[in-house]
Amino acid sequence: MAIDTGDTTWMLICTGLVFLMTPALGFFEAGLIRLKNSLSVIMQTMTGMALLSTLWFIVGFTLVFAPDVNGIIGDLSWFFFNNVPFSDSVSWAATIPGVNFGAYQMMFAVITPLLITGAFAERMKWSAFFIFIIVWSLVIYYPLAHWIWGGGWLAKLGVFDFAGGIVIHTSAGMAALASALVLGRRKGFGPEIMVPHNLPLAAIGATLLWLGWFGFNAGSALASGALAASALLATQMGACTCALVWILLSWKRTGKPTVSAAINGAISGLAGITPTAGFITGQWAFILGIVLGFASYYGIVLIKERLKIDDVLDVSSVHGITGIVGSLWIGLFATQAINPIGPNGWLYGNPMQLPIQALGVGVGALMGFVGTFVILKLIDYAIGIRAKEEEEDLGLDISYHQEVAYENK
Amino acid sequence: MAIDTGDTTWMLICTGLVFLMTPALGFFEAGLIRLKNSLSVIMQTMTGMALLSTLWFIVGFTLVFAPDVNGIIGDLSWFFFNNVPFSDSVSWAATIPGVNFGAYQMMFAVITPLLITGAFAERMKWSAFFIFIIVWSLVIYYPLAHWIWGGGWLAKLGVFDFAGGIVIHTSAGMAALASALVLGRRKGFGPEIMVPHNLPLAAIGATLLWLGWFGFNAGSALASGALAASALLATQMGACTCALVWILLSWKRTGKPTVSAAINGAISGLAGITPTAGFITGQWAFILGIVLGFASYYGIVLIKERLKIDDVLDVSSVHGITGIVGSLWIGLFATQAINPIGPNGWLYGNPMQLPIQALGVGVGALMGFVGTFVILKLIDYAIGIRAKEEEEDLGLDISYHQEVAYENK
Amino acid sequence: MAIDTGDTTWMLICTGLVFLMTPALGFFEAGLIRLKNSLSVIMQTMTGMALLSTLWFIVGFTLVFAPDVNGIIGDLSWFFFNNVPFSDSVSWAATIPGVNFGAYQMMFAVITPLLITGAFAERMKWSAFFIFIIVWSLVIYYPLAHWIWGGGWLAKLGVFDFAGGIVIHTSAGMAALASALVLGRRKGFGPEIMVPHNLPLAAIGATLLWLGWFGFNAGSALASGALAASALLATQMGACTCALVWILLSWKRTGKPTVSAAINGAISGLAGITPTAGFITGQWAFILGIVLGFASYYGIVLIKERLKIDDVLDVSSVHGITGIVGSLWIGLFATQAINPIGPNGWLYGNPMQLPIQALGVGVGALMGFVGTFVILKLIDYAIGIRAKEEEEDLGLDISYHQEVAYENK
Repeated sequence: MAIDTGDTTWMLICTGLVFLMTPALGFFEAGLIRLKNSLSVIMQTMTGMALLSTLWFIVGFTLVFAPDVNGIIGDLSWFFFNNVPFSDSVSWAATIPGVNFGAYQMMFAVITPLLITGAFAERMKWSAFFIFIIVWSLVIYYPLAHWIWGGGWLAKLGVFDFAGGIVIHTSAGMAALASALVLGRRKGFGPEIMVPHNLPLAAIGATLLWLGWFGFNAGSALASGALAASALLATQMGACTCALVWILLSWKRTGKPTVSAAINGAISGLAGITPTAGFITGQWAFILGIVLGFASYYGIVLIKERLKIDDVLDVSSVHGITGIVGSLWIGLFATQAINPIGPNGWLYGNPMQLPIQALGVGVGALMGFVGTFVILKLIDYAIGIRAKEEEEDLGLDISYHQEVAYENK
Repeated sequence: MAIDTGDTTWMLICTGLVFLMTPALGFFEAGLIRLKNSLSVIMQTMTGMALLSTLWFIVGFTLVFAPDVNGIIGDLSWFFFNNVPFSDSVSWAATIPGVNFGAYQMMFAVITPLLITGAFAERMKWSAFFIFIIVWSLVIYYPLAHWIWGGGWLAKLGVFDFAGGIVIHTSAGMAALASALVLGRRKGFGPEIMVPHNLPLAAIGATLLWLGWFGFNAGSALASGALAASALLATQMGACTCALVWILLSWKRTGKPTVSAAINGAISGLAGITPTAGFITGQWAFILGIVLGFASYYGIVLIKERLKIDDVLDVSSVHGITGIVGSLWIGLFATQAINPIGPNGWLYGNPMQLPIQALGVGVGALMGFVGTFVILKLIDYAIGIRAKEEEEDLGLDISYHQEVAYENK
Repeated sequence: MAIDTGDTTWMLICTGLVFLMTPALGFFEAGLIRLKNSLSVIMQTMTGMALLSTLWFIVGFTLVFAPDVNGIIGDLSWFFFNNVPFSDSVSWAATIPGVNFGAYQMMFAVITPLLITGAFAERMKWSAFFIFIIVWSLVIYYPLAHWIWGGGWLAKLGVFDFAGGIVIHTSAGMAALASALVLGRRKGFGPEIMVPHNLPLAAIGATLLWLGWFGFNAGSALASGALAASALLATQMGACTCALVWILLSWKRTGKPTVSAAINGAISGLAGITPTAGFITGQWAFILGIVLGFASYYGIVLIKERLKIDDVLDVSSVHGITGIVGSLWIGLFATQAINPIGPNGWLYGNPMQLPIQALGVGVGALMGFVGTFVILKLIDYAIGIRAKEEEEDLGLDISYHQEVAYENK
């Protein structure tokens, strides 16, 4: 097929929108944590942008999307972006330039490992972080993305994942859980009250994440048109009904609904709708948002309040539980009326899609949890992963970056 | 007509751009009010996004745009977005998917009631706000939007409104005036000096509003191409000359031009150019911006300084007066050379368009003012609309949301 | 050629993206300077937006892009945007409406003089600034843009500049150097430690600049498709490898890599890739980013640390040196395989392109440096250009705008 200007414009813009999500994640997290560590997450996302784009350019793209080797990994035919066509398309997206597909996918590879920063915030050693995101990309993200999106063994089994519920949110969410366990709780977690240091900043981050998510989900149609339009509507409804549930739950539970609840609710809805946005109707997205709201809200109550696991920004619930629910939702409510090259779910006569999705989710969760556990243990053994007590007291901003967020002069 | 990828891409993006304006409005307002109430408007815009998107999905879209019943309201054929085509268009926009048109219009329905928050900021009760925006949408926005955009009686009479000067800015501006009168002045208004608490935040909000407005106005062409390009240029010029007038007036009047003036001037120009952006040339937009600058600047002098009406962020001038001026401008300077399916104004041989526009403006102003007055009185009777004195003293952030914007630890 | 909806959508969006860069520049700079002067740069960028858009509408567009007069300047056939077609294209961009091309180029004309604000921040007189940007546009930007982009004498000699390495970054960078010399150092420069007052704000600015740069560079293809896609990838890689070099150099040099370094590194890469983004492969962009990183980082060490020139935000290095390097890069690594209407560089068999580029760079640098020097001296003679000592002590925000950035009540 020929390059289409409308499709190419759409995918160029979506590349920009998904790009935006990584620094937006940094602002969202920075606003929600304590002042003394707020710059450290901005530094992590900015450094992640530079480092992981570079890694993707060199080996990531070819390992994920170049011709499949035994269902395991892509070959090296696109090493250092060589031979990636720019005036012609690649097989994954027939109407846009190959380099555009590569740049768009780059932005996904950048943000995924950085989602985990919300779990290990306020106590992770800078040098350990730097190594961690490289290793995690090579060992977890690239293989998993190849298995599901690059024609690997899970794709061959029929696992579907529209924009990254398994590849991204389940894997990063379970990685968050593992990292919270390996690192241990922040000093003072429990007795000490730790409140967001700058909620307008967090809201700016959430807003730009939400905007970017239209590019993330509707862009995963890889072309403009009906499917992209449907996915955008589904994305908005998943976010909105989920946010509404969070607002109402926090209102009911404490009497005072919070901005934190509103924005975390929206992000939970956005994460959960991701895998299924291009397979279901707007009505089922509306309902899914409600389910996601309860699942993620009470997921946090379970993990942080009951189990006392210090996943600082609740990545395991906001991304992990929602990613799992949304990926399974495909097995129930997907319909080829929306996406002819997607699956049908149980409701549409195909009960077998659910166990297939469950398999995919299981593999993603396992890769995320066990892989992260092992990687962090190895890095800990080699150079240590946790800030020293005095560094944590002083704050990571001064300790590792010799800067503070705000100066009153 | 067939779905066009270039047009669809444009309208998908414009949906994102208009989405962005609602949280941007929150940042703009939060920055311009006092610290202790700054989160409350961010909470109102975020909650409004979730709640009003949901309401639009359920009944709003069908009431506004489904087949007309006696010129009054749309029927229920698109209730809960049922039967809205996603691989085909609807009559309102022939080259884009129906769900995209529905999602684009959703963003307008979200922001309109929230414009009023600028008038009742710093003293409105949270629960009253929550109910108010639902009722206002059902009773004022949906009917008015149907009458002008959905083929209702005002449309049949020949009233034009390109992107919402009557439907949005006149109605919300007059609603602002009514709400300022019903709620009464903030405690301390007059003697106490109330200054913006975070001008960079307000400027971020203004910037994202301005950017989003390109999608608001140029997107109202409902397709890419010449008309969208012309409307974008008109939008930029209306904003720029109006901002320049504000800067020069504030320079001349006080000797020190302010950031507040620059950004309020830009927003005034953007609001005023909205109804007419797709009907006039760039040159007439340039001139309109100058007129809007004087009208809105001295409108504030009149309403707030002379009449002592506490419309906190001057919504009645910045949106209301400008919306009225811009809507009447159509009757003077619209030309079918720019938009063949729009009207000609007086200058182009059609003096009758001006009274028709005046009728539309009158209806919008009346609906906005009287409707809002009645709604607020009813809610006040039922549950009260004003924060208690101690809540106002403490600030709405703590009183209703148990959060503060910034923490120094 | 006919108007293409995909191309038009792309250029409408890119107009919005480049628009965004000007306020983003204000946030970036405001965050990096001292609190007491932070609003003044936001005021400068907002005022610049209003004023320079207006100037462009009246005379700028016609002087740069209307039919050439003796290689020197455009004629007045598009004065006040008269005769600019909106339903037809102009010769510079065959598939989009003429008014869209005019609006897109407007955004470049707005941001260029404002880049210099980073050099003269914290001590420039407001009224002098207001006059300076008008004169600089008329005397330096409009002619230079015409010479290279509008078919003037440098274009006829074969100088290439894809998105503004000479026209924008070299000229503004050298203007920055001249303005730092004419204005002299800030009071206290040297002994006093001046640190960024709000790094999250600076990071928000950098993020929006980066996003906008996709529109700046990839939009300079003036159409959607292969070239835009290639330029976007090149832009991302130039930014990322350059940022990585800055992070690693600041890590190595001080032991503590900073957010300031990460974001300044990204902007340096973006500025340097600008002239060549549409002429080289992604691989050469990757390498260029590394070269730019060293050149700009050590450029600052030279200019600010060794020569003690108080170019406050290092515009002469971040934009100037990078603009020069990137513009010369065309002479080495440009290839018509990427852009058939661009040049080949030395590596691709055309050694003569390098001296031609050097000539263009020399002219741009000379215009920027000498022109700015003379303009500032003349304004200084007429009304003075530097804030009084007590105004500088008090801060420009209060002195010129009677506002402060943040209020704690």
